[in-house]
Amino acid sequence: MKVEGRNSVYELLKTDKEIDKILVQKDLKDDASKRLINVIRSHKIKVQLVDKYVIEKESESKRSQGFIAYTSDYKYFDVEDIIVDAQDKDGFVVVLNEILDPHNLGSIIRVCECAGVDGIVIGKDRSASVNDTVMRISAGALNHVKVARVVNINHAIDKLKDNGYWVYGAEVGGQEIYKANLTGKLCLVIGGEDSGVKRLTKEKCDGIISIPMYGKVNSLNASVACGVAVYEAVRQRRK
Amino acid sequence: MKVEGRNSVYELLKTDKEIDKILVQKDLKDDASKRLINVIRSHKIKVQLVDKYVIEKESESKRSQGFIAYTSDYKYFDVEDIIVDAQDKDGFVVVLNEILDPHNLGSIIRVCECAGVDGIVIGKDRSASVNDTVMRISAGALNHVKVARVVNINHAIDKLKDNGYWVYGAEVGGQEIYKANLTGKLCLVIGGEDSGVKRLTKEKCDGIISIPMYGKVNSLNASVACGVAVYEAVRQRRK
Repeated sequence: MKVEGRNSVYELLKTDKEIDKILVQKDLKDDASKRLINVIRSHKIKVQLVDKYVIEKESESKRSQGFIAYTSDYKYFDVEDIIVDAQDKDGFVVVLNEILDPHNLGSIIRVCECAGVDGIVIGKDRSASVNDTVMRISAGALNHVKVARVVNINHAIDKLKDNGYWVYGAEVGGQEIYKANLTGKLCLVIGGEDSGVKRLTKEKCDGIISIPMYGKVNSLNASVACGVAVYEAVRQRRK
Repeated sequence: MKVEGRNSVYELLKTDKEIDKILVQKDLKDDASKRLINVIRSHKIKVQLVDKYVIEKESESKRSQGFIAYTSDYKYFDVEDIIVDAQDKDGFVVVLNEILDPHNLGSIIRVCECAGVDGIVIGKDRSASVNDTVMRISAGALNHVKVARVVNINHAIDKLKDNGYWVYGAEVGGQEIYKANLTGKLCLVIGGEDSGVKRLTKEKCDGIISIPMYGKVNSLNASVACGVAVYEAVRQRRK
């Protein structure tokens, strides 16, 4: 959801609503704007300075005064919510490592819901967050699968490991996915569109698994890769 | 036809397609762009350096990354081309039953190329056809997998059956996909976003296979469903 204009953004900051980011037009010289920028920064919210044309393109009201905040009505879960839920059965969590495209995030949420995944963990920075597009693309799945947003996904992975989860990163150059044992408490880490699973996160993984590639392009869309991996786990885990 | 984006242009260069010219944005400083410019020049293709606003004007995807190649239109294959190709090994064909969204078509082409599918059959009517969006979303895969466009996909399925293909429709209410035998000469029919596999086409199928669903939404995006089905076939067929 977009909140536009100085006053509206200021009021938004007073609430406990989650704010993903705030776009601010470059070169705003007036005092009111400068004051607001300071207030935003004091809330430790990312200010993204952009050119005027970006603001004009993004603005729906055309009265943004150079400020557009992106909030989500979505209430994120904690990693603990996802873990606790799985006490009575083998847990299944998907961790996303810098998925940037809201379409991919929505599509991943959808396939995870269909596959019976308990929850999805996303990072706070360098990640698409739940917005209207994600909501729409998820086709309603967002209401039935838990999404946790964390400052550091590596810490979330540690927490999962402490709770007995076995962590596999999906990435090129690993063990063929069909040969890995994906039963039991499982955490699958899916890499971002450009960067794949990052090095530090990869080092946290108990194993790296790969989808075999027989073509020349050899890279799958992130949500399709997630679907293939998640459903191989389903195949192995189903009774 | 325009081909936009670094990856798509790079994949295009690997083919023997005729490229009229390539517009490249001036002053691209990153290494990936510089490398691509060198590759383009090594192909003796004219690089036309233009200002950013020219790229922005010409770009249809708005994701050109500063590269727009102009090629002749896509040349569809015949169903026979896909069948003939498969004489020396077990053929694997995907038939699309009214996939309307170019994004889904592009994404399906991409996953089929990665999975080593010989070719994709689409209908002439009530189907997305290959355009710039499909090209871009396929991330270059379109250059390495054959797409046949036919007036009637049911006739195409008959032709495949005459050539010894076993035809499975992916649709709710069928046999669990993991229990079906997807080895040998295989044709997978993937249904459209809204309508699934149509009745007449379903009647042509030797079997209906279903991806198990454990959620409340219980419908997968067409390209993700295609990915899951195609890769289950890969799992069974790989040596």
